[in-house]
Amino acid sequence: MNKSREFAVVILAAGKGSRLKSGLHKVLHNIAGRPIIEHLMAQVQILQPTKTIVIVGDEREQVIGQVSDRATCVVQEPQLGTGHAVAQAKDALAGFDGDVIMLLGDAPFITAVTMIEMLERLRAQDEPAVVVLGFEPEDALQYGRVITHSDMTIEKMVEFKDANEAERATRLCNSGHMAARSKDLFDLLGRVDNDNAQGEYYLPDIVNVAVREGRTCAAVVADNPEEVLGINSRKELAAAERQWQELRREEALENGVTLKAPDTVFFSYDTELAADVTIEPNVVFGPGVKIERGARIRAFSHLEGAHVGEDCEVGPYARLRPGAVMEKASKVGNFVEMKKATLGEGAKANHLSYLGDATIGAGANIGAGTITCNYDGYFKHQTKIGERAFIGSNSALIAPVTIGADAIVAAGSAVSRDVAAGELRMVRAEQLVKPGWADRFHDAMKKKKAAEKKG
Amino acid sequence: MNKSREFAVVILAAGKGSRLKSGLHKVLHNIAGRPIIEHLMAQVQILQPTKTIVIVGDEREQVIGQVSDRATCVVQEPQLGTGHAVAQAKDALAGFDGDVIMLLGDAPFITAVTMIEMLERLRAQDEPAVVVLGFEPEDALQYGRVITHSDMTIEKMVEFKDANEAERATRLCNSGHMAARSKDLFDLLGRVDNDNAQGEYYLPDIVNVAVREGRTCAAVVADNPEEVLGINSRKELAAAERQWQELRREEALENGVTLKAPDTVFFSYDTELAADVTIEPNVVFGPGVKIERGARIRAFSHLEGAHVGEDCEVGPYARLRPGAVMEKASKVGNFVEMKKATLGEGAKANHLSYLGDATIGAGANIGAGTITCNYDGYFKHQTKIGERAFIGSNSALIAPVTIGADAIVAAGSAVSRDVAAGELRMVRAEQLVKPGWADRFHDAMKKKKAAEKKG
Amino acid sequence: MNKSREFAVVILAAGKGSRLKSGLHKVLHNIAGRPIIEHLMAQVQILQPTKTIVIVGDEREQVIGQVSDRATCVVQEPQLGTGHAVAQAKDALAGFDGDVIMLLGDAPFITAVTMIEMLERLRAQDEPAVVVLGFEPEDALQYGRVITHSDMTIEKMVEFKDANEAERATRLCNSGHMAARSKDLFDLLGRVDNDNAQGEYYLPDIVNVAVREGRTCAAVVADNPEEVLGINSRKELAAAERQWQELRREEALENGVTLKAPDTVFFSYDTELAADVTIEPNVVFGPGVKIERGARIRAFSHLEGAHVGEDCEVGPYARLRPGAVMEKASKVGNFVEMKKATLGEGAKANHLSYLGDATIGAGANIGAGTITCNYDGYFKHQTKIGERAFIGSNSALIAPVTIGADAIVAAGSAVSRDVAAGELRMVRAEQLVKPGWADRFHDAMKKKKAAEKKG
Repeated sequence: MNKSREFAVVILAAGKGSRLKSGLHKVLHNIAGRPIIEHLMAQVQILQPTKTIVIVGDEREQVIGQVSDRATCVVQEPQLGTGHAVAQAKDALAGFDGDVIMLLGDAPFITAVTMIEMLERLRAQDEPAVVVLGFEPEDALQYGRVITHSDMTIEKMVEFKDANEAERATRLCNSGHMAARSKDLFDLLGRVDNDNAQGEYYLPDIVNVAVREGRTCAAVVADNPEEVLGINSRKELAAAERQWQELRREEALENGVTLKAPDTVFFSYDTELAADVTIEPNVVFGPGVKIERGARIRAFSHLEGAHVGEDCEVGPYARLRPGAVMEKASKVGNFVEMKKATLGEGAKANHLSYLGDATIGAGANIGAGTITCNYDGYFKHQTKIGERAFIGSNSALIAPVTIGADAIVAAGSAVSRDVAAGELRMVRAEQLVKPGWADRFHDAMKKKKAAEKKG
Repeated sequence: MNKSREFAVVILAAGKGSRLKSGLHKVLHNIAGRPIIEHLMAQVQILQPTKTIVIVGDEREQVIGQVSDRATCVVQEPQLGTGHAVAQAKDALAGFDGDVIMLLGDAPFITAVTMIEMLERLRAQDEPAVVVLGFEPEDALQYGRVITHSDMTIEKMVEFKDANEAERATRLCNSGHMAARSKDLFDLLGRVDNDNAQGEYYLPDIVNVAVREGRTCAAVVADNPEEVLGINSRKELAAAERQWQELRREEALENGVTLKAPDTVFFSYDTELAADVTIEPNVVFGPGVKIERGARIRAFSHLEGAHVGEDCEVGPYARLRPGAVMEKASKVGNFVEMKKATLGEGAKANHLSYLGDATIGAGANIGAGTITCNYDGYFKHQTKIGERAFIGSNSALIAPVTIGADAIVAAGSAVSRDVAAGELRMVRAEQLVKPGWADRFHDAMKKKKAAEKKG
Repeated sequence: MNKSREFAVVILAAGKGSRLKSGLHKVLHNIAGRPIIEHLMAQVQILQPTKTIVIVGDEREQVIGQVSDRATCVVQEPQLGTGHAVAQAKDALAGFDGDVIMLLGDAPFITAVTMIEMLERLRAQDEPAVVVLGFEPEDALQYGRVITHSDMTIEKMVEFKDANEAERATRLCNSGHMAARSKDLFDLLGRVDNDNAQGEYYLPDIVNVAVREGRTCAAVVADNPEEVLGINSRKELAAAERQWQELRREEALENGVTLKAPDTVFFSYDTELAADVTIEPNVVFGPGVKIERGARIRAFSHLEGAHVGEDCEVGPYARLRPGAVMEKASKVGNFVEMKKATLGEGAKANHLSYLGDATIGAGANIGAGTITCNYDGYFKHQTKIGERAFIGSNSALIAPVTIGADAIVAAGSAVSRDVAAGELRMVRAEQLVKPGWADRFHDAMKKKKAAEKKG
């Protein structure tokens, strides 16, 4: 990119999106495990603008809480339209003489590449006053139109309701994303009026003002319409999620990942998958997951914040929570939950277990029904299990506790004291036998049942 | 609706539907967790007809068992066609002088609104003898046609196999649903013959009989073809289920529910969802579920007969069975089953537990692997857990038993006696230690393994 | 089929398929739980050819390991094209004077019926030198064309890149599968040259050589294009899996199986389903499963190598592993795993259990949280549970162990010795009570928490 001028970004995130019927601001709803505005912010941050300004309004604390570490938040109050929203950035941009890219905060998929195209067009020799990002949807009916000359300079911007038949027949629509040089922008905004039904100041009007004054304005066209669209309903949110997932699944297949049933696998924005990973149907990846080569993620598994090593086997029905680390060729089976726990190379926890705040050595075997009792109601405590240790089924390991290498915990034990290497620990009461008791119990209960039925 | 005349409903449910290859009568197969005929009955009941008659035949006990509390069941035996089926209602309607709506019991989606349209047409000034509900499918080929004049009065009904080319080119098809005034109906039925290949009395023939006598008959047209179609195979059953689910998902999104992957969420006919509920992929709702605002239903959860309070978190892998009640901000985590159990405000059961026939106080913490032992083989017993009580992991609570407020049950305990408020209960045997035992065991077993391999 | 001549099959499986980016040879990737080449081998074996030869190359040990029990494996090294590959079979077919069908090992869906059609054409009166299996895809662009006369004899084979406009406009494409009489085949192959960009010997060139010499060659056309296509990427692998699953679901519906949500049910190549089975959403069948009439497989269940008897109920969240046998009307509920275990008629294991290497009698009740401790780190041991026995919740049955008929194991017991019929076994320590302990603990911990926050 021509770096001769600095640039700033203004993101519009004032309107909460009433059609979502949510207490949560619309830009904070998630796609692929990440808020909409964070998808946008991530692309912006690639370009390292001089300044990033987010215009907030409804539920502003929520938005400020999300982005204020990386952006200047400016309040728009009251909300008098998109033009008015951008105008609120004037003070924050005082003294700034570069370019300004204006983005809608509810559009998660606009790319840094497109932003660069907008900037490059703005910096071209003909020096357009405003650059508008247009798009060409299959069905253009409801959108405002960008009426262009053959060289893609703009003749005018027109709302659909104000468009004549010829204008309605055009296909280039206004995405709402724009760029303008700072000095032009605030000058033009100052001359936009609110002479319309809503009494609002519309951002696209800066184009019409500029054109009327003989300035050049220009359109650039998004590669595909999905890139520029905003999310204004839960249906659009679901559609955007699907669109993202479909692309990500294609990419995984392309990279040598087997997806038995691609439509049933859900990734997060940051899922990392090596080649030759196999993923069975119905697997959900929350954020922060990395899977190494040769691993097999079986059906109905749910992973978040987990690192799965080479040739590991996960599931079916495994739940890996944040901090779960599976070293090479280890195995987590059905109905097993891991959280802040490391399973050493070749170790196995195959059935019905909870492993939390634990370190498990290489080659250890965790029996069915093993529970690390890591929480006393106030604090979390650590369980350490040595290499090749054998934890008998249905054992409770009451942390803090350490089980030595090659040690054995007998099935059904509740272990509250450390077990030394090579030691056996058994915590089991006497076997109390009552011959004939069960027969007598059955007789008594059958009589009681019969009596109940009569009564 | 014009209420000047009473009306009755006759539902045809004699044929079991051999194409389903089922021991269950076709009208009893479920869509959205409810038998087909109950979808129809629910719409009928909205209109409160004077009388509801169900014609039964095959597997009649099954159908009678389902509907006899709300309908008069009349047996058709032998089954000599749809006209013959309706004729069986004559005695049950003796003395009834109102209108009769005739519905096919295997058509789950016909609405009360459509039934009203049929009645209103029947009661119009031109007094048609019969009103036929027509529909216009995409592909009309296989259906019988309703040949109409331009004013939608009927020229004739024609089976597809008997239709000429011009008739086959028409698109209005016969749904099989009809309405007629009682006195007309049985008079016309008496004049329908069975002069056809099957030797059956066909209901649509009443229209041809009436028209031949110079009576007016009229068609009303269903808004969409899906509304009127019957289910005659498992494929159609699956398609109807999909159609229902898709509409319900759209409605949920519209109402402010987040569905991360709409296609993977399955609702029941009576699922109630507040706004701002979030539902992750792969969630199944059986009948009787209500979810309050702000609740989050995580992936792989299965709910039936459950009430989930505000801001609760459910799953992943939570199973709520009938009688599960989660109060505000309570949490049920992975591999946890609740049945006839109440979890108090803010209480948590995060892992691998079974909570049945239990009341759990606000703020209580149920450790991983906790089991309420509610069944002795004959009777179910109650477990009561006080507010803020802490149940250590891997505990068995042997009901009937009461754990007091703020009490603690030590991990791994099998508690068979009440625990008082503020008390600690520990049921744990001595820790038996055998130093070096595990090492000796490993040596012996390795030798045995080696010997086996040689042998 | 005309059986006057013997026939042999040559399967080309040398190229590993680099686009899959896999350490596993492409013909060993699974579709419907079975390697691609095994789908093909199964169809071949129906026809009982005199000889089956597999040409191997890349990762040859993998392929040899898979098929060498039923085929002669011949190494192609170096790999100089498909013609060169078939030529490697010459020695293995020395003295064989019958027909040879040449198949691509990465095409899983070609049927025995199609192979017969190829053979029959080869044996027809006009004695073609080569028979080519053609197909007519929707979009033919990328494939080589089979240019035919009106009688389906071949004018020439042409690669797409070498085809003229008229040839490109034809729709019959070369599948790569062919048949030829042995003596013709090796003679023709000997005259194919490698005068092309890749310097390879192409199998289709045998057709052009034969035609040039005035021999007749003929095409037969596959019924549908999906039948003949090979798998060359993970995307194609996923698409083939989907295609297979969709056909199998249709077939299940047709046979009287209820699939609530067909798209969410995944079968294996050998899944056997009786009529009137109901399968809820999200069920995965691994290989070796048989389900009897009236059984209900609930949501989120995962079955492999299991036999589910009449009227059984499985799940939700049941995992049946190889060797799981459920007898009539038995029930396996949520978060239960069975492996090499038999559940007798009417027996129940409803919640959170692991049943491995076990035999459970009719009418027995396995309480929640029951674990069969079948593994001591070296050997697996058996658990036997008698008829109508009652295993209290959260019990550990330490195998080898036998529980008699009608016996009761008290909840929370770790049973390491046999329990006789009608006996009660309880393994439970004294209930240790510390009144006020919990209150004092809460006070101390709250202080500690507060101190931590200050500090």
